[in-house]
Amino acid sequence: MDYYARPLAQLIGQLTKLPGIGKKTAQRLAFYIIEMDQAEVNNLANSISEVQENLTYCSKCHNLTQNDPCHICNDPKRNEQLVCVVESVKDIVAMEKTGEYNGLYHVLHGAISPIDGVGPDDIEIKDLLPRVREDEVEEIILATDPNVEGEATAAYISQLMKPLGIKVTRIAHGLPVGGDLEYADEVTLSKALEGRQEIE
Amino acid sequence: MDYYARPLAQLIGQLTKLPGIGKKTAQRLAFYIIEMDQAEVNNLANSISEVQENLTYCSKCHNLTQNDPCHICNDPKRNEQLVCVVESVKDIVAMEKTGEYNGLYHVLHGAISPIDGVGPDDIEIKDLLPRVREDEVEEIILATDPNVEGEATAAYISQLMKPLGIKVTRIAHGLPVGGDLEYADEVTLSKALEGRQEIE
Repeated sequence: MDYYARPLAQLIGQLTKLPGIGKKTAQRLAFYIIEMDQAEVNNLANSISEVQENLTYCSKCHNLTQNDPCHICNDPKRNEQLVCVVESVKDIVAMEKTGEYNGLYHVLHGAISPIDGVGPDDIEIKDLLPRVREDEVEEIILATDPNVEGEATAAYISQLMKPLGIKVTRIAHGLPVGGDLEYADEVTLSKALEGRQEIE
Repeated sequence: MDYYARPLAQLIGQLTKLPGIGKKTAQRLAFYIIEMDQAEVNNLANSISEVQENLTYCSKCHNLTQNDPCHICNDPKRNEQLVCVVESVKDIVAMEKTGEYNGLYHVLHGAISPIDGVGPDDIEIKDLLPRVREDEVEEIILATDPNVEGEATAAYISQLMKPLGIKVTRIAHGLPVGGDLEYADEVTLSKALEGRQEIE
């Protein structure tokens, strides 16, 4: 890095700290940035420096948002009695893209994982119970990831909700659409069998 | 992108404009930036916004530099009578890393490529001749890329220098060290044969 002029070496060094950006990529990006319009460069730099101060977490669902409560919690057309529990903000985007979901969310910001030392108190679970009571939620959809941690988290929340007598559902496991049965792993295939539905 | 809070969507949009950064990578980087220390974020943003104003091109060799002339041209221990012509600033770094070169450089910022409409006047060739005369350069090493454009550029500069009666050399073509003769392409192999040297 000593071979580059200092501002360039600094930029490359900063870029290398980002995940998945190695030396070569950082170098390529830095040379690109040097050739960009200064106005464009400022837009990029401002987006980076201001993103944290302009964002907050929704006090209701823990979504990342510019205004609290977030635009989803604030939307009167949404069904407040339906709450989908997800692990991360990215999962909200995935759900929203389906265009099929009209309820609200609850972002856990993680999943229970004893092996990593993450317990129920380390993720955003504790205000789920009061929220469910206050808003008279009718159904909780557990859309945590279909892996060990996601299943453990779903099981934990399901136990937590049982005393309230509300409906708790888990998103279906099965074969991905467009997939090939031949190449499905056994666990997925047995889950798909288990979850089979009658054709009407 | 509409699914994200505006500052986040903006950041993702800005990152997507960078080369080799797709939507998924931009999303991953943006979420990482949100979790970074604000001080680190500012360092990154400042490195980006200030890189252009803090950099200039060396008036002698066209290297990117903080101060003009660059640290290489300014180094009294360097041999001013030896000039290595390269296509880009990155090539200087590659040469410097060898630790074998003690002369100065001349960065063309491109290569002659009629097919892309790049002629000799579109790259930094014109001040090479006066420089060679003034500094009483003894040897010009043509280290342009070993491809069609690089060869054309080397041939052009070589013709340009001939009337001055100075030594003009071209870096050797041959097999890469650690490579495998079996897998060498024919052009490289015939160049390697052509450039064979007697073992003493």
